[in-house]
Amino acid sequence: MKENINTRLNELRGQMKAAGISAVIVPQADPHMSEYLSPHWQARRMLSGFTGSAGDLVVTLDAALLWTDSRYFLQAADQLEGTEIKLMKDGLPETPSISQWLTTTLHAGETVGINGMVFSVIDKENLEMSLNAHGIVLNSDFDPIDAVWTDRPALPECKAFVHDIKYAGKRARNKIAAVLANVKKQMAASTFISALDEIAWVLNIRSNDVKYNPVVTSFLYLSPEENVLFIDDAKVDAALAEYLKAEGVKTAPYSSVKEYLKSLAADAKVLVDKSRTSAGIVDVLGAKAVKGASAIAMDKACKNDVQLEGVRAAMHRDGIAMVKSLCEIQDRVAAGDKLTEMDVAEILRKYRSAGELYFDESFGTIAGYEAHGAIVHYEADENSNSTLDKKGLLLIDSGAQYLDGTTDITRTIAMSDAPTAEEKRDFTLVMKGHIALGSAIFPQGTCGAQLDALARQFLWKEGLSYLHGTGHGVGHFLNVHEGPQSIRLNYVPTPLTPGMITSNEPGLYKENVHGIRCENLVLTVPAMTTEFGNFYKFETLTLCPFDLSLFDTEIMTNQEIEWVNEYHRQVREALAPGLEGRPLEWLYANTEPLKLHTITL
Amino acid sequence: MKENINTRLNELRGQMKAAGISAVIVPQADPHMSEYLSPHWQARRMLSGFTGSAGDLVVTLDAALLWTDSRYFLQAADQLEGTEIKLMKDGLPETPSISQWLTTTLHAGETVGINGMVFSVIDKENLEMSLNAHGIVLNSDFDPIDAVWTDRPALPECKAFVHDIKYAGKRARNKIAAVLANVKKQMAASTFISALDEIAWVLNIRSNDVKYNPVVTSFLYLSPEENVLFIDDAKVDAALAEYLKAEGVKTAPYSSVKEYLKSLAADAKVLVDKSRTSAGIVDVLGAKAVKGASAIAMDKACKNDVQLEGVRAAMHRDGIAMVKSLCEIQDRVAAGDKLTEMDVAEILRKYRSAGELYFDESFGTIAGYEAHGAIVHYEADENSNSTLDKKGLLLIDSGAQYLDGTTDITRTIAMSDAPTAEEKRDFTLVMKGHIALGSAIFPQGTCGAQLDALARQFLWKEGLSYLHGTGHGVGHFLNVHEGPQSIRLNYVPTPLTPGMITSNEPGLYKENVHGIRCENLVLTVPAMTTEFGNFYKFETLTLCPFDLSLFDTEIMTNQEIEWVNEYHRQVREALAPGLEGRPLEWLYANTEPLKLHTITL
Repeated sequence: MKENINTRLNELRGQMKAAGISAVIVPQADPHMSEYLSPHWQARRMLSGFTGSAGDLVVTLDAALLWTDSRYFLQAADQLEGTEIKLMKDGLPETPSISQWLTTTLHAGETVGINGMVFSVIDKENLEMSLNAHGIVLNSDFDPIDAVWTDRPALPECKAFVHDIKYAGKRARNKIAAVLANVKKQMAASTFISALDEIAWVLNIRSNDVKYNPVVTSFLYLSPEENVLFIDDAKVDAALAEYLKAEGVKTAPYSSVKEYLKSLAADAKVLVDKSRTSAGIVDVLGAKAVKGASAIAMDKACKNDVQLEGVRAAMHRDGIAMVKSLCEIQDRVAAGDKLTEMDVAEILRKYRSAGELYFDESFGTIAGYEAHGAIVHYEADENSNSTLDKKGLLLIDSGAQYLDGTTDITRTIAMSDAPTAEEKRDFTLVMKGHIALGSAIFPQGTCGAQLDALARQFLWKEGLSYLHGTGHGVGHFLNVHEGPQSIRLNYVPTPLTPGMITSNEPGLYKENVHGIRCENLVLTVPAMTTEFGNFYKFETLTLCPFDLSLFDTEIMTNQEIEWVNEYHRQVREALAPGLEGRPLEWLYANTEPLKLHTITL
Repeated sequence: MKENINTRLNELRGQMKAAGISAVIVPQADPHMSEYLSPHWQARRMLSGFTGSAGDLVVTLDAALLWTDSRYFLQAADQLEGTEIKLMKDGLPETPSISQWLTTTLHAGETVGINGMVFSVIDKENLEMSLNAHGIVLNSDFDPIDAVWTDRPALPECKAFVHDIKYAGKRARNKIAAVLANVKKQMAASTFISALDEIAWVLNIRSNDVKYNPVVTSFLYLSPEENVLFIDDAKVDAALAEYLKAEGVKTAPYSSVKEYLKSLAADAKVLVDKSRTSAGIVDVLGAKAVKGASAIAMDKACKNDVQLEGVRAAMHRDGIAMVKSLCEIQDRVAAGDKLTEMDVAEILRKYRSAGELYFDESFGTIAGYEAHGAIVHYEADENSNSTLDKKGLLLIDSGAQYLDGTTDITRTIAMSDAPTAEEKRDFTLVMKGHIALGSAIFPQGTCGAQLDALARQFLWKEGLSYLHGTGHGVGHFLNVHEGPQSIRLNYVPTPLTPGMITSNEPGLYKENVHGIRCENLVLTVPAMTTEFGNFYKFETLTLCPFDLSLFDTEIMTNQEIEWVNEYHRQVREALAPGLEGRPLEWLYANTEPLKLHTITL
């Protein structure tokens, strides 16, 4: 395998020489700016052997370098060993960015090659500006991958299918009309959509093209004149073809998209989302492109009543599966079974997949025992797979795609009967943040970055912190990570709006010790209207107990304890009718109220 | 007076016609982008009769309109009555912006005139972009004010003086070297500074040119070759001239600045702060201008040890004056004296000005009794002046310029012996936010917008809010409002850094009822370093009790009560040695510990 790497890099260099290219950037990306890639677009993985979900490869005629972030430093070092590829640790002060490295390594007059189809237009423009300032040329139409990757997998060929209106709640035809109204507000007449989750949402179609993400590989053009879905014929059966026609959508081959865009009238004003449309597409559109914001993201993020009813039902099923799983895991470890982290993932899959309307997992389960819990994007494999013991903490982050909703939940549980003081303190500090954010009330217009500190304040007071965001948007039978809102330190100017589903997941990761994360999904809902305007709050959607043995009530206020007790009361009330026997007993035991402090004024 | 307005507007129109100008914008601004203006630059006030601190006038050949914000709607309506000027209520959804109004009122080919010297380059560029998109021309070199304003006051002619190194802590020569090092980081070789507080800081000079702001009307050019202060001769006495020479600074006439900039070599790279440099200056610099960020703001914001020692001493003097004032106000009202809001301001001035190193007030005292407290920028005058009674709340926001530091403090006090439940609840909700922010610990890199919600969370939970920011930077014997940091909902990407002095001033304003604001100044200091990095916290600098009778401890946690008690312990310890008699008695009574809750786990 590792010999193949060097051979392929040299084949790539042959292509570069032939085209007069001094350096090529191979990013982890596809033409749809997806977070998860189908195998066809795993060129960076193929060329480097590095399998992490983030990282860009740069190859020059005499060097090869891989930039990735701290989550993957160890894994990348291991996977790159024995190849000529040098690891560049992104985020460290001494590590230059790719453009900094290129501008100090190459000379004026040399050319950098990229495939503009796998670079967002905004990233390409920034790169080009840096390079040009040093007299370096950018060729954004250089795509040597097919020539080098002789056994490249085909594009996904799974059938697409209709997401029933009884789950989606709004017809594609009506969504298209609303999107075109949004398009007008940005002074455009039509829109071209590359983002797969946006296409799936607006047309109420799904498929199985990308692991965990039920999207359909395609592009979509919407205009008052015609709506065209660019999709391979193999993916469209007669039923889908008929459905699309009824919704006013034509189809055309996936590969005909550039030709179509070229054929649009010269005065067309085509809105593209500048962060999720490739430079290759925008280059073809030229002056017809109106580079703006998505006309879909806000409508998609704010779920309608039918979707919310579905999500609540999915949460109920997911809660039942979680309770059965946690009960089985704890009971079997207590009984001396040698369960592993991979067994934990399997148990969750077993109970979830037995539920109605189950489609798939929504991401690879993270089951991190003890020190593995501190590796934020850990996924156990045959080499790492730990065996659970009657001690320490187990972090389980998992979720499912149901036809009526997507779930994402993290619970951290004690494997011993008597957690240590440090385990309890760390867990409780995380929960205090989870509760502060979950019970916040805030004025209309508030963005996630303005609330993020509520979840971090108790950790910060102890000199603790976590480096990931506190909350991401969640799709509806769609991507488990979706925008435009988020709750994180970085400023994202999207107000938290009624109907949005967002995660609430503060954490704490002590290297080589343990990891803690407590995650529920929450829905933004109106709270009240006063002389100071409209105020919103969060309704918790996720239904599953937190580990009672991990609460250190000495550092909790009565308000916080009451929040836990009220949440557990709701969980018990909702899930008890769906359980029996040992899991029901487990639910009761794990939703007992915590004792309040007696306060004398 | 009001007849004069219409006469002057018509004289202005004569100038406009002669120059082919269809509309002119007269902003509340000077060539230094100052917050407070010297009389010479009060053209908007002269032309409109409106005296508020914010508001822009637009005059066309047949209309005149004044845009101002909600703080001034009532005052502006009153002052504009009887003139032809129409009030445009800025911030209301139905009110167009000035550029929107101009582009819908004027026709393509018409010309808008502004004096580029009183527009920041960024505002001028945005305006020009909007106008040009509608075929309207911007003439940024139109200055008819001298012709219309025949009795225009001269530029300030007060003498400037040296701010002693024993207060400033760092020589001008050394500050200049540090600034030029910052300039290099922005790929420039020199810098041109318009902001008066930046010039005063870097050269350690002060004057009395602008009410409350001890700045020196001037421009400054710093370069490795020469440093030139553009200042009127009348302001420079022999001692100052000698001082400037010793620090390596030449002088040139204030009015010669454009000529000097024109004479710079064509390849000069002159850094200008794009938010605080006028379009007029940047137009003269042309391609020589490097439009970036201030090379001074961060150094100025992070006070050195000598400055901090001075600030602590100034806070002590200010606290003594506050205690004597509050004691006198409460005692006299209790004794039946008919004190007014203006008397309150006078009492504060009396005690402050008796203190060592006192120079001036740092802004006009806001003494707002009952409903007046809800008017955020209220300043009592002969017409509004309320008489205090033994009921309701009195909000007092005031501060001083001492040679060794600038103060800014707000206290809200009950005028009755038994405040109402609503008064106590409102005050306590504000204080809970003040305490949460004041006792926050946060990682290096945290910006004010990321902490702002800590101060608002308790109000938000009750559907309450306040529309101003929570904290602003404070200068050192300089402007009471300074950047670059702030604590507010709007994102400002400046990390709170050790040495910065910032206000902590949440509030609550109930129209026609009362206003509450609780303000201390806080210093960012290191808190701890852990495996998660460096953490900072705030040290409170202000020394003055909060009104004990207004705390509703039922809605406070013991941690919050302990914060109040500890603060009052420090205030008592610091101020008691400087007081005697009745004020000392008052201090003791007003720093008694609040009773803690008894908590049984």
